[in-house]
Amino acid sequence: MTGSFHPPQRILLGPGPSNVEPRVLEAMMKPMLGYLDPVYLQCMDKIQALLRSVFETDNRVTFSISGTGGAGMEACLANLVEDGDEVLACVNGFFGQRAAELAERWGARVVRLESEWGRPLDMQRVREAFRKSSARIVIMIHAETSTGMRQPIEELKALRDIRDAIFVVDSVTSLGAHPVGIDRNEIDASYSCTQKGLGAPPGLSPVTFSERALEKMRGRKQRPRSWYLDVQLIDKYWSSERAYHHTSPALMNYALCEALAVILEEGLEKRWERHRRNSEAFVAGIEEMGLEMLVEAQHRLWTLNTVRIPQGIDDARVRARLLNEHNIEIGAGFGALKGKIWRVGLMGSGSTLNNVLLLLAALRRVLRAEGFPAS
Amino acid sequence: MTGSFHPPQRILLGPGPSNVEPRVLEAMMKPMLGYLDPVYLQCMDKIQALLRSVFETDNRVTFSISGTGGAGMEACLANLVEDGDEVLACVNGFFGQRAAELAERWGARVVRLESEWGRPLDMQRVREAFRKSSARIVIMIHAETSTGMRQPIEELKALRDIRDAIFVVDSVTSLGAHPVGIDRNEIDASYSCTQKGLGAPPGLSPVTFSERALEKMRGRKQRPRSWYLDVQLIDKYWSSERAYHHTSPALMNYALCEALAVILEEGLEKRWERHRRNSEAFVAGIEEMGLEMLVEAQHRLWTLNTVRIPQGIDDARVRARLLNEHNIEIGAGFGALKGKIWRVGLMGSGSTLNNVLLLLAALRRVLRAEGFPAS
Repeated sequence: MTGSFHPPQRILLGPGPSNVEPRVLEAMMKPMLGYLDPVYLQCMDKIQALLRSVFETDNRVTFSISGTGGAGMEACLANLVEDGDEVLACVNGFFGQRAAELAERWGARVVRLESEWGRPLDMQRVREAFRKSSARIVIMIHAETSTGMRQPIEELKALRDIRDAIFVVDSVTSLGAHPVGIDRNEIDASYSCTQKGLGAPPGLSPVTFSERALEKMRGRKQRPRSWYLDVQLIDKYWSSERAYHHTSPALMNYALCEALAVILEEGLEKRWERHRRNSEAFVAGIEEMGLEMLVEAQHRLWTLNTVRIPQGIDDARVRARLLNEHNIEIGAGFGALKGKIWRVGLMGSGSTLNNVLLLLAALRRVLRAEGFPAS
Repeated sequence: MTGSFHPPQRILLGPGPSNVEPRVLEAMMKPMLGYLDPVYLQCMDKIQALLRSVFETDNRVTFSISGTGGAGMEACLANLVEDGDEVLACVNGFFGQRAAELAERWGARVVRLESEWGRPLDMQRVREAFRKSSARIVIMIHAETSTGMRQPIEELKALRDIRDAIFVVDSVTSLGAHPVGIDRNEIDASYSCTQKGLGAPPGLSPVTFSERALEKMRGRKQRPRSWYLDVQLIDKYWSSERAYHHTSPALMNYALCEALAVILEEGLEKRWERHRRNSEAFVAGIEEMGLEMLVEAQHRLWTLNTVRIPQGIDDARVRARLLNEHNIEIGAGFGALKGKIWRVGLMGSGSTLNNVLLLLAALRRVLRAEGFPAS
């Protein structure tokens, strides 16, 4: 019972976590520091500066929440939504549904604008729904991890012609791999995770808030119920006041800091390009095998590639064989797409041509053994 | 900006994090697994079993929350408190205050039973306050990290003579170093952290819930607002249903698993005894130097030892010299005890005779240089 644990070496090509490069892992072996050690505070400052670069923002309030991406989603909604606020939620996948549900939990009257899973929401429909609503908060999923669809977020800001609003964008599966452009796209709040495009282990959620978002928080009639995710309290620790809030998960932040340094050394644009190239190589191989992608070419995520499961093929068996015979993890579909797609992550240091080639070869082998294509 | 980060090697004798032994750190270098990998699920089962041993409980619902100790406190209160519930909060330190504040945030009418910081609450007073109130939830801090005081929790269950209630106990600074005895003491909910008595890095919060606590949750009129900390949803992932909730911070859980194995190999009783012995050695040295402890002998924590700062001595200067000249971190007082005490952590793998001897020698040297004792 107390003996050591020896996990196998997996090639993680699912929806995350992805494999983390040794340099980032080794950062967690650096000497631990107390949460108010002056040297640790420098590390926090560095994380903030590097995160701003990756989010493409000048937002002062940009830091990591001490929880996973879901904690980041909750931090945004718990702080921005007040009881009775009308919120327009764009829903075309599982994480859009979840964001709408969380907004409701936090007291919002949610107007759901729904569309088919795997297709982006038409911005003309978003405009119409926004115009008809009295919503002052709009939630949009940039990279829908359940479908592999990328929602154009560039046109969100045009909604301000109609009425001022706060735009909350989920960048969990895009940050560090796709351009997010927080400032350029006038996004007011965004949350992400560490284990996908950023190439760090799971456990933290990078977030960023615009001045407009902070104003909304400062003007609240009641403080948010959540103390752990109270952004104004957390900010007092990350900013010059250095007021104790909770014991910072130091080793996770070391890893994040190193992963961000890796990203900026590679260069954001080169990194986006690498993700695009490897995704396209994967898609070419998939189509050559006679398989189909779920999402249309121009709306595909480069990070999370969704393949339709051919008729007659047993989803779970194929994934189990990839795992057991090849040590390769790919993701299952879920919600409306359960049993219908595979989700293939090519993210962070996992987005390599060799991973693409290996997965294609292994998948071809397993599918043949399972009788595809039918001869 | 993007270069590597090189923290100094500190001896962490503050309120946590403590130094983590290499075997536990190395566990984080093990191959990462996906959150539904069958091998990862085995690791989760093992964590649950080991945590039950350390909490001294048979509670099925015993797992790690993916956030720090503060997230564990919030998870307990967010799930157990419903709007208008009366809660009796025992407050004799900063963390008692915080728990009372969180209960209020989550909708409770809080009756605060306060007493002097650094002294335990008299159980007769607790009985009286409970009798006069209509509280069905009682919060007690077992190990008050702000004062170094240990509250006897053995008599809590006797309150059930008066009225049935749910007992929530903060074991952040006791678990793994002091007996907690969840089942023996009939505690219904408890939260802890990983970076103190358990000897793992900060980032997770072990929690445990009795059947009585779960019944209260299942009977709620409304689900808790918090989704990230919704214990019933998290339980669906940790138990046989394995329903996705959030991406588990795998490496943090590897470290926790290894730290728990280390604890049970040492043996719980031997480990408690080691903490007691090193604390007593520290106190003997402190008193020999002419300094005084804040807390009376029989109510002292072995993990967190609080020393009164002698008159005329500059708190911040002494701590800065220990840090800069000796690479030793000790903690400052805060709240009502700011500038009045030092908080010395001897926890997990940091509770060693050599750490005690080194700190005493370094403190003696620094205090002499600062003019204590006055000659």
